Amino acid sequence: MSKIIWGINPILEILKSHPEKLEEVLIVKSELRGKVYQILEKARQKGVPIKVRARLPEHELPPKARHQGVIAYLKTFDYASLEEILKKAKERGEPPLLVAVDEITDPQNLGSLIRSSEAAGAHGLIVPKKRAASITGTVIKASAGAVAHLPVCRVTNLGRVLEELKEKGLWVAGLSARAESTIYQLDLNLPLVWVIGSEGRGLRPSIQEKCDFLAAIPMRGRIDSLNAAVAGAIALFETLRQRYHAS
Amino acid sequence: MSKIIWGINPILEILKSHPEKLEEVLIVKSELRGKVYQILEKARQKGVPIKVRARLPEHELPPKARHQGVIAYLKTFDYASLEEILKKAKERGEPPLLVAVDEITDPQNLGSLIRSSEAAGAHGLIVPKKRAASITGTVIKASAGAVAHLPVCRVTNLGRVLEELKEKGLWVAGLSARAESTIYQLDLNLPLVWVIGSEGRGLRPSIQEKCDFLAAIPMRGRIDSLNAAVAGAIALFETLRQRYHAS
Repeated sequence: MSKIIWGINPILEILKSHPEKLEEVLIVKSELRGKVYQILEKARQKGVPIKVRARLPEHELPPKARHQGVIAYLKTFDYASLEEILKKAKERGEPPLLVAVDEITDPQNLGSLIRSSEAAGAHGLIVPKKRAASITGTVIKASAGAVAHLPVCRVTNLGRVLEELKEKGLWVAGLSARAESTIYQLDLNLPLVWVIGSEGRGLRPSIQEKCDFLAAIPMRGRIDSLNAAVAGAIALFETLRQRYHAS
Repeated sequence: MSKIIWGINPILEILKSHPEKLEEVLIVKSELRGKVYQILEKARQKGVPIKVRARLPEHELPPKARHQGVIAYLKTFDYASLEEILKKAKERGEPPLLVAVDEITDPQNLGSLIRSSEAAGAHGLIVPKKRAASITGTVIKASAGAVAHLPVCRVTNLGRVLEELKEKGLWVAGLSARAESTIYQLDLNLPLVWVIGSEGRGLRPSIQEKCDFLAAIPMRGRIDSLNAAVAGAIALFETLRQRYHAS
């Protein structure tokens, strides 16, 4: 079955960057103006099949999904290979910056992390097949369309993939609230993969063992935990700061 | 009417820190074990009325609210005054660090920003009465209970309050994707209020005018916008880095 996505901006983004990933766009007639009309035109121009209907098959959407009058069916999501991700870094002439997630099961969090990773210019994201959300409509929507730009690689054994990345010269940095070092003490100019765990349990011990470094985001509140996607974004943007904005 | 909150951690947090804010706790009998049992004990100990029931009044909750077998009614939410917030900074002997939101209407985003602000050790948050979410059950849940620790001040005229803060020696820094300066170029050791706008429209011009500085988070992706709550968290933790972790 094909994946369904909804909302104006995610669909417009994918139409612009990867129209070949779209199977069909469905538009509600009463909303056919402004940006929704832009979607119609863009889909025509790119040769994506369009249907204009009196109503949408809302039963196919999660309850309360804000579709804004437009949904689209994706061809099966195209996961990328590890090689493609590393090639992207090479082509850009940048030290690799990857993100791997461990046990992030909440689709909102995964979508948010994809969005922040893309905005940070990361080269790709690694998601385990088990114990993690896969790329669903909710993830695509929460990513604000960023999945269209960020290669996502799905792997069976995250530990083994981290080993493989180490052999290829990357350093594996785990974000861990209990680490002694801080993210500010690490040299983030190195070719890097950030490993982000769930906010409840953090990284699994078997994954921690694979990390070259563990680092914490120092906090000063009484609640000393951040949302996993927010913590990931802070680590990523600290990486950018060190690479491109440190005085 | 009293506000309703749900979920184990938010309720446990408030029971620990501000039990006086709770009117009543409702627990589902079938879930009475582990952390839910801990809530029962803590509520007893703190003198908060408890009811154990066969089922919860789910119609009072938003659809899909993950209550985990426990809800609580809050006495009317206690907003703080600006003076209380500034006093908190003074007592801690720290340069004030405040957050003000402009047009953040999404309760998830407001809750997330409250959580990150508290974790960053901010002294308080300023929310306008209009064009912003107020503190509802969804906000409290999304804040993971951080509202119990972070004073929130509700104001009629945000522009005027920013003027007032300037007179008290604070600097007003607006986060704006289109600013020429970056957050890394600002001196964030100053007594500061960060103003965070909506991700769609950013800060209103009338609020931008009140800012002493405007600063952007430099990005490197093709989608150059972040979720408003994530952007706010990055600005806050950059402030902490400069204040306490810069080498």
